[in-house]
Amino acid sequence: MMEKNLDAGNQHLPFELTLAYIEQIQAAIAIQDKAFILQEMEELFPADITSILYELNGEEASYLVSLLDTKLAAEIIVNLDPTDRKQFLKNFSSEEIAKYVDCLDSDDAVDMLNEQPVEIREEVIAFLEDREQARFIIDLMHYDEDCAGGLMQKELVKINVKQSVTECVEEIRRQAEDVESVYSVYVIDDEGTLLGRVSLKKIILAKRGSKIADIYTDDIVSVKTTATGEEVADVMQKYDLEAIPVVNIQGRLLGLITIDDVLDFITEQAHEDVQAMAGISEDVEEDDSIWKLVRSRLPWLLVGMTGSFMAAEIIGQFNDEVAKIPTLAAFIPLIGSTGGNVGIQSSALIVQSLADKSGIDTSLWSRLQKVLLVSLLNGLIAASFAFLGTIVLEHSSAISMVMALSIFSIVMLASLMGTITPLVLDRLKINPAVASGPFITTTNDLLGYGVYFLIVYMLL
Amino acid sequence: MMEKNLDAGNQHLPFELTLAYIEQIQAAIAIQDKAFILQEMEELFPADITSILYELNGEEASYLVSLLDTKLAAEIIVNLDPTDRKQFLKNFSSEEIAKYVDCLDSDDAVDMLNEQPVEIREEVIAFLEDREQARFIIDLMHYDEDCAGGLMQKELVKINVKQSVTECVEEIRRQAEDVESVYSVYVIDDEGTLLGRVSLKKIILAKRGSKIADIYTDDIVSVKTTATGEEVADVMQKYDLEAIPVVNIQGRLLGLITIDDVLDFITEQAHEDVQAMAGISEDVEEDDSIWKLVRSRLPWLLVGMTGSFMAAEIIGQFNDEVAKIPTLAAFIPLIGSTGGNVGIQSSALIVQSLADKSGIDTSLWSRLQKVLLVSLLNGLIAASFAFLGTIVLEHSSAISMVMALSIFSIVMLASLMGTITPLVLDRLKINPAVASGPFITTTNDLLGYGVYFLIVYMLL
Repeated sequence: MMEKNLDAGNQHLPFELTLAYIEQIQAAIAIQDKAFILQEMEELFPADITSILYELNGEEASYLVSLLDTKLAAEIIVNLDPTDRKQFLKNFSSEEIAKYVDCLDSDDAVDMLNEQPVEIREEVIAFLEDREQARFIIDLMHYDEDCAGGLMQKELVKINVKQSVTECVEEIRRQAEDVESVYSVYVIDDEGTLLGRVSLKKIILAKRGSKIADIYTDDIVSVKTTATGEEVADVMQKYDLEAIPVVNIQGRLLGLITIDDVLDFITEQAHEDVQAMAGISEDVEEDDSIWKLVRSRLPWLLVGMTGSFMAAEIIGQFNDEVAKIPTLAAFIPLIGSTGGNVGIQSSALIVQSLADKSGIDTSLWSRLQKVLLVSLLNGLIAASFAFLGTIVLEHSSAISMVMALSIFSIVMLASLMGTITPLVLDRLKINPAVASGPFITTTNDLLGYGVYFLIVYMLL
Repeated sequence: MMEKNLDAGNQHLPFELTLAYIEQIQAAIAIQDKAFILQEMEELFPADITSILYELNGEEASYLVSLLDTKLAAEIIVNLDPTDRKQFLKNFSSEEIAKYVDCLDSDDAVDMLNEQPVEIREEVIAFLEDREQARFIIDLMHYDEDCAGGLMQKELVKINVKQSVTECVEEIRRQAEDVESVYSVYVIDDEGTLLGRVSLKKIILAKRGSKIADIYTDDIVSVKTTATGEEVADVMQKYDLEAIPVVNIQGRLLGLITIDDVLDFITEQAHEDVQAMAGISEDVEEDDSIWKLVRSRLPWLLVGMTGSFMAAEIIGQFNDEVAKIPTLAAFIPLIGSTGGNVGIQSSALIVQSLADKSGIDTSLWSRLQKVLLVSLLNGLIAASFAFLGTIVLEHSSAISMVMALSIFSIVMLASLMGTITPLVLDRLKINPAVASGPFITTTNDLLGYGVYFLIVYMLL
């Protein structure tokens, strides 16, 4: 690496994992070529070694990790996906796990322990050498995983407002050993109440003798331990923060949430929303087991089918009409897919605007007014299109009338359903993204067929 | 604010905008109560003032901004959405815009200028007082907006490897005035080639006389100017970076991308993916104009309808069969919605695994094998469900056979289509998320009805 660094133009670029490289590592593991493996791993970042672990089998992976320095191994393990990590740690004793946990930031340590069965969790905590870490972990375990308390780490650098810059530097030296990246020093009073912060830049540029009280800024934003992950993400994104302090109800500084944790949270949320929209009921990845993949898809598939059986019952009531005018059957897909498409378009817009918390909440009524106006226009255009389409396909003008009227009604109804459903789900604290999934599509279908055949029944 | 701060338990929490507050501000603007407005604004963060602007009309907003200090005003303007910002800046002369641009980070300045017509852009650049800023901007304008070159800012603190910590502190003092948040100092050689970085923490803790060469780390990751936004986001997320340096092909340090810009990029991407899945063809928000909302929905709505007309033509070929056995019509929704649901489930999984760049790419063949196995199982279960469902609804066993066979074929076909389409789109550099949208649903529908009536034709 040091040599390669001199080779300009090729340096410091992200590592790219190749199959050939994996095979080389696997071969080295097979003959236990410790020197070669250590030399290779030294050139990599922890996150790169984690990528390698995914390509190895369990035994190979544990052998590789066991060769490494504890701190590095801990960082590699913490980068694993939760399910993979749980599986991987089965190869280690509670005592070994405790060594890794000792090296982690408290928030990561808690995430890792929460995946473990209760008895292992307790054993690991008992084995921890760093008793401060043990106290941090027990503290953090009280919080719900997805709230600010569950996202925060206890590691941060804080200083009493009465102290000087010189004392602050000493404090950084003392506290910063455990703290991976320090962005700011947080300023507290004697009670531990958060008063503000001093950036490291300011500390560097300040005279050593200055008082913290004279250089800190009280223009900071914090969140309470009970804030939801979404709220934390929104606030950090709105104010462009790289870290946000977490306080309790009395305003005491309890911990810190860093942007990388929030970034993971945001990515995961987006992932879940897409899965909800796609009707996948478990959080799955393409490389999960066949059975898990099957199981994650079945529920909504069968719900959708049940809905379609109900649709069959509705349509079956009009067997006589269909037998007389079989063309009515040919337009069933037009009804179903138009309703579905309009419903998803409407709900996706509402879901996104619900996610965007800036600004004042639009009132339900002004929302509906707008939706009605948009769907009125879309409905008229779609109905004209349906009218012309059926004429071009040489159907009777009665059929054209029925189709135009049905499409108009369905566009209006599906827009309304697509707007109201996510709003209701959001009130009920259910992820509104599911409203864009198979459930709303199925409901819209049923509604659509009902309206269609009602119009058929009345007009033909 | 200073007083409120002493009031523990209530301090430093994110600002919440209320309608009453907006009305108060509007009233103050109406009577031009400058003192009150300035006093209120002083208590807020720039991002909060931006939220207020969204609730004001154009005239009120420009009046409010014109009262503020230039630097603060610039920060507020830069927080606006691109379309709103373009509209808002119409109220200002090129000379006034230049004053704001002078205060911005170069990446934000370029984004803002790129929204303006060419002549205004050139006028503004000519009016810039800070000629270094002008040079930065002209440099950055060469890059495509969504690549690393377009995302980076020129502002960063760099130091020659031959210098000492004392000189480095002086350099920070000199350079850091223009640089909002400093996380690290980047270390370069005489040619400007990036060698590594020193964290501010290390600079604080180092002896003033130490050499940079002795304390910097060369363990850093950088990206080339040509890297795509997705690549930058993946790398920063993988390595948990708060900032990443950008180098040219010779390894020279050119700029820096900070995590807040990448966070915006990621959020926007997720937004676009959901809109692609929902069949919304423009990037719209709920509060866009009625006409824009109508226009963004129509294309896919009409494409979907055209597909359904094609379906009507296919089904129309079997008018005789439908007239004889009207029940066949009743099961059309079952065919359509099952195919649609399976297709979306499959494509969503592939789209997400395409987005996750860690690990080795799965080969097409091993992907398809797995998909086939999963859909074989799902197909068998869904087919049995269809068989039982039709029996419960008291249809003939011939109908039950037809439905079971059709559902099985459709689950298999839709899985394959849902898997292959996003892979093909990705190769063609089209956002694969559109594969989960109306296009694939419509295609699956057509395929499904074709298969269904073919089976009907052969078996009944």
